[in-house]
Amino acid sequence: MVEKGLSRFINIKRETKGLINIDPLQTGGRLTDAARSALLDWGDGYSVCDFCRGQLDAIKKPPIYHFVYDALPKFLGADVTRITGGAREGKFIVMNSIAEPGDWIIVDKNSHYTTYVAAERAKLKVKEVPNSGFPNFEINVEDYRNVIEETKKKDRTSKISLIVLTWPDGNYGNFADAKKVAAIAKEYEIPFMLNAAYAIGRLPIDMKDIGCDFIVGSGHKSMAACGPIGIIGINNEWENDVLKKSKYFKSKEIEMLGCTARGAPVITLLASFPHVYERVKKWNKQVEKARKAAAQLQELGINHIGEKPHRHDLMFFESKKLYEISKRHKDGAFFLYKALKKRNIWGIKPGLTKQFKLSTFALNEDELQKVITAFREIIQLAEQAF
Amino acid sequence: MVEKGLSRFINIKRETKGLINIDPLQTGGRLTDAARSALLDWGDGYSVCDFCRGQLDAIKKPPIYHFVYDALPKFLGADVTRITGGAREGKFIVMNSIAEPGDWIIVDKNSHYTTYVAAERAKLKVKEVPNSGFPNFEINVEDYRNVIEETKKKDRTSKISLIVLTWPDGNYGNFADAKKVAAIAKEYEIPFMLNAAYAIGRLPIDMKDIGCDFIVGSGHKSMAACGPIGIIGINNEWENDVLKKSKYFKSKEIEMLGCTARGAPVITLLASFPHVYERVKKWNKQVEKARKAAAQLQELGINHIGEKPHRHDLMFFESKKLYEISKRHKDGAFFLYKALKKRNIWGIKPGLTKQFKLSTFALNEDELQKVITAFREIIQLAEQAF
Repeated sequence: MVEKGLSRFINIKRETKGLINIDPLQTGGRLTDAARSALLDWGDGYSVCDFCRGQLDAIKKPPIYHFVYDALPKFLGADVTRITGGAREGKFIVMNSIAEPGDWIIVDKNSHYTTYVAAERAKLKVKEVPNSGFPNFEINVEDYRNVIEETKKKDRTSKISLIVLTWPDGNYGNFADAKKVAAIAKEYEIPFMLNAAYAIGRLPIDMKDIGCDFIVGSGHKSMAACGPIGIIGINNEWENDVLKKSKYFKSKEIEMLGCTARGAPVITLLASFPHVYERVKKWNKQVEKARKAAAQLQELGINHIGEKPHRHDLMFFESKKLYEISKRHKDGAFFLYKALKKRNIWGIKPGLTKQFKLSTFALNEDELQKVITAFREIIQLAEQAF
Repeated sequence: MVEKGLSRFINIKRETKGLINIDPLQTGGRLTDAARSALLDWGDGYSVCDFCRGQLDAIKKPPIYHFVYDALPKFLGADVTRITGGAREGKFIVMNSIAEPGDWIIVDKNSHYTTYVAAERAKLKVKEVPNSGFPNFEINVEDYRNVIEETKKKDRTSKISLIVLTWPDGNYGNFADAKKVAAIAKEYEIPFMLNAAYAIGRLPIDMKDIGCDFIVGSGHKSMAACGPIGIIGINNEWENDVLKKSKYFKSKEIEMLGCTARGAPVITLLASFPHVYERVKKWNKQVEKARKAAAQLQELGINHIGEKPHRHDLMFFESKKLYEISKRHKDGAFFLYKALKKRNIWGIKPGLTKQFKLSTFALNEDELQKVITAFREIIQLAEQAF
């Protein structure tokens, strides 16, 4: 019977509340106080539809219209923007609307898994631009040219419909040279999409300056919004393809399935925007903080992997030292996770010691030092014990 | 400059908070107290991903796993269920995974607009089963047979890949005979999807009993959850098609784009579930309340349109009387909206007087009488004035 199991759903608490969270997934999506306060007003189901006359982004109060048609385009340097269900949804929207089943798309090897899955959903074939492998895992953007040429040579019938670059990628936080990719894309007349899920809302970005045709961002990853929500920027040239209207319902955009985020996600995105708008201006401080943390961890035998000098708060580390400890520790591979949790630090996945990611984005100076001290203590205690 | 416009995003209040809301979109999605309390804990971005090891529905704490693999299948009488981004997303998921571009789908004339838009997104062609027109707008389900036969006759090359019934529909709240449609679908060996966005979470439902292959529901419309979120039920037979895994990432389902709702929406869905589970048992009281309201409005010259006896809280009304008043009233077509708002009642769209929908679902006895009294007063005052 269901009844017996219902008690599981009573009083579901988030046990990570109040912990220092260094999971890169969580640091840019933490709500602002303004968003948290809006959440209670707008938490009900479809709340913003109270004010809708048939089109989500035409709602003027709450100011969704002003966000989509004024603030967001300016913020991104985009001709046209929309609110989506997330960065992955944005990628699928572009792929499904501008490519035909069987077409090729070319993606960087550091792409998020959802780039591949979105391509599969749109029935597209994927070619990868390699990375440089250990220890930097960088994308040499000239390889886009090679992969385009090879793909054309091997398959003379299918079209290459899209080039994707992940900027920065979600594993190493590397920034490949997006402007050069844009130039190559133009040369071959292939549209170019930037997956900026870890950029938009963290750092200043200008689509026009980069020269991409599409850009996708994530509200829950980097814009202090309640998920799932994302945004998309589209060049004028592609507006009619991507935002094609239904032939049955003239105000409804097909790829948006009419409307996308309608409740707490869109309101928190709006409510956090003034803060997000300001925080991107201080991006250089974030980079400084990340580099400082990496240098301090390096001294402990926890080595930063990826592009150097590093330019993002998301960082990948490797530590033979922590791995060796895990082999002798009573908690085994879980020792690091457990020891950090004991110190109110969350975000290194249970079972990881040799390689892991973390982000310094949400940490203040005090919290950063707590994290560094925790790693130092954990290593010292283990070394004393053996 | 963006800065100037930023003040719009400060302190975004929901001015309909605390009003009696009779908009059918809003009555079943209102959060329970338990969900509202969970909202604050879980509002941050991707909150539940703190506990994820790579698959949303494998998370055991919070109990998403138990919901998806135990509670929800039992609640729906479904073999397999998943959490989606909404009922529209569920419809697209089915269409995109089991049909090929160019195939036909057959839908009832009372379908929600998103059924058409989802079909267009999946590049499918749509045939309609007509309704009976004014005043009942009922679907004669035997017409599914006729439309199937006609479609086959006119187009011998394209396949009919799916039959859809909206149960109840979102305009009139009519319930067509779903079991008979299931029987016709079986006879022609065409899969059958029930759009139950206004049913699941309001009334008891059993997929096996109905005999459909797919069912979609809406968290924000009828399950007291923060949107956008929905659920899908799938027959065993179709599991491998609809839930096909990525060839690149073995744990990721293509049509879910890996994961769907990850923050407040999924937690509020879970937190409200014990209440929703109980409330469907009292559905007959909801039907009684709706009929009583319709009878009282009838006495005022506001006539119920649609299936009789009516079996849902969503009701469509027509009133020549209100329309005549609007032609002479100083507020014109907006008089009804304004007069109701003045009485703290929300949900009749601005500008409507002749025809409108409302729902009694969220009203207690006292509120229902306030609504009826408001309509009575509004009409009396207008009639006295002229």
